[in-house]
Amino acid sequence: MAKTKNYQHFCPVARSLEVIGEKWSLLIVRDLLGGPRRFSDLQESLGKITAKWLTLRLRELELVGIVTRDSEEGRREVWYTLTPRGRELAPVVAALNVWGVKNALRPPLPGERVSLAAVFTSAIGFFITQRLSLPTPRTWVVHFNDGRTAVIRYDGKRWRWAIEDECPSDADVRIETTPEAWATFYALRGEERKAALLAMLPSGDADAIEELLATFDGQPMAVTAAR
Amino acid sequence: MAKTKNYQHFCPVARSLEVIGEKWSLLIVRDLLGGPRRFSDLQESLGKITAKWLTLRLRELELVGIVTRDSEEGRREVWYTLTPRGRELAPVVAALNVWGVKNALRPPLPGERVSLAAVFTSAIGFFITQRLSLPTPRTWVVHFNDGRTAVIRYDGKRWRWAIEDECPSDADVRIETTPEAWATFYALRGEERKAALLAMLPSGDADAIEELLATFDGQPMAVTAAR
Repeated sequence: MAKTKNYQHFCPVARSLEVIGEKWSLLIVRDLLGGPRRFSDLQESLGKITAKWLTLRLRELELVGIVTRDSEEGRREVWYTLTPRGRELAPVVAALNVWGVKNALRPPLPGERVSLAAVFTSAIGFFITQRLSLPTPRTWVVHFNDGRTAVIRYDGKRWRWAIEDECPSDADVRIETTPEAWATFYALRGEERKAALLAMLPSGDADAIEELLATFDGQPMAVTAAR
Repeated sequence: MAKTKNYQHFCPVARSLEVIGEKWSLLIVRDLLGGPRRFSDLQESLGKITAKWLTLRLRELELVGIVTRDSEEGRREVWYTLTPRGRELAPVVAALNVWGVKNALRPPLPGERVSLAAVFTSAIGFFITQRLSLPTPRTWVVHFNDGRTAVIRYDGKRWRWAIEDECPSDADVRIETTPEAWATFYALRGEERKAALLAMLPSGDADAIEELLATFDGQPMAVTAAR
C-alpha cells in the first residue's frame, strides 16, 4: 500500500483527502461515475497510468469501501463499480469540474491525451451544475475526423450527450472538427473561444450558434432574453 | 517547487487536481475561506505542517493565482488572502466536507489534533450544504473545559457559529464537555452518537435535544413533523 496522506487532524475535509486525495483516485471515481468499467477501460480512459498504479489505487479504493470488484461466473473480466459511498463523491467531482472549467483549463498541450468522454462529460456536468436551461429543446452535433459523432441534447429539462452512429436530422448546430480543436474551443474564453468556434465553420443559424457559445460560457439566458 | 501531479490528460477534473491536489493545498484554502490569515495562524490551524512545506504550498498557490500576500505598510506581518479564483474553490471544500462527514469521519485518534474551528465550521458547512432548516430560531451552546464557549445559532434562515465570551441566555440546549468528546459525538453515527450526546449530560428539554441530534444526523424535519 502506498504511503497515503495523513494530516493527524480531526476534520472531515482532511479525512476526505486522506481517503481519496492520492494521485489518480478521484479520476478513477470520475470514470466509474459513468457506470461499471473493466481494468482495461480504466487504463484506456486514464491514459498515462501504469498497470501497477491502477492496481494499487483500485485495491485502496476497495479497502475503504468506495469500489467493488464484480466478477460474474462465466465471465472472464472483472468489472469495477462504485459503492453507494463511492457514488456520493459525485458532488466532489462535479465541483472540481466546474472549478477546472472556469479556472484551470488550457488548450491541450502537445502529447496531451484528449478523450471525447472527458470533454463531453465535463461540459454536461458544467451545464447541470450551473443549472443552465434553454427555452426549448436543442440538439448540437459534433462530427469528428476519426468518424465519431458526439451529440449534445437538451430535451427542455435535462442535458445529456452520447456518441451516436446516425447523424440526427434535427441538429440546431452542426460542427466538423478534430478532438484537439474541440478541446481548444472548450478551454478558451471570451473572444478567443468565439474565434475557435467560428474557425470550425459551424453550420446552423446565427442565433443558434450564439446560443451554443453563450451556453458554454455559462450564460445562455442572456441570449434567450435578447431574442 | 515540489513535483506536482501531472496527468497529461485534457480534462477539467484532472487539471483542477494538478493545480490544487497536492498535500495541504485544499486545507490551506479551507482555512482561508474563513478570511485572511497570517502564516502563524495557518501553522496553528494546520497543526502538523512544517514551516518549509507551508512556505512552499503558499508560494505555489500564489503562483497559480489562488492566494495573494498582503503586507500593508507599517504592519510587520504578512496576511494571506484568497483571490476570487481561490474563493471559487468553496464548493469543492464544501463537497469534501459533506462526503467526509458522511463517509470518512471517525473519533479523534490518540494524538490527533482537534481544532474547534474545524469541527464547528464543518458542522455549519454540512447544515448549509444539506439545506437544513428548523421551524424557528435556535441557539445551541457548548462550553469547553478550556474555558471557551462555542455557540451555534440558527436565526430562522441562516446557520452560523462563533466562539463567544458571554454565555447566551436563550440557549435551547447547553452542553459542558471537552473538544475530544464533542469531536467524538460529531464523528459517531446513529445510536452511538446519541449515547455520546447523552453522556455529555446536555441540558434543555427532551425535544430540543432530539432536534439537535436529528440536525447533526442531517434530518431535522422528521423531528419537526413529529412535534
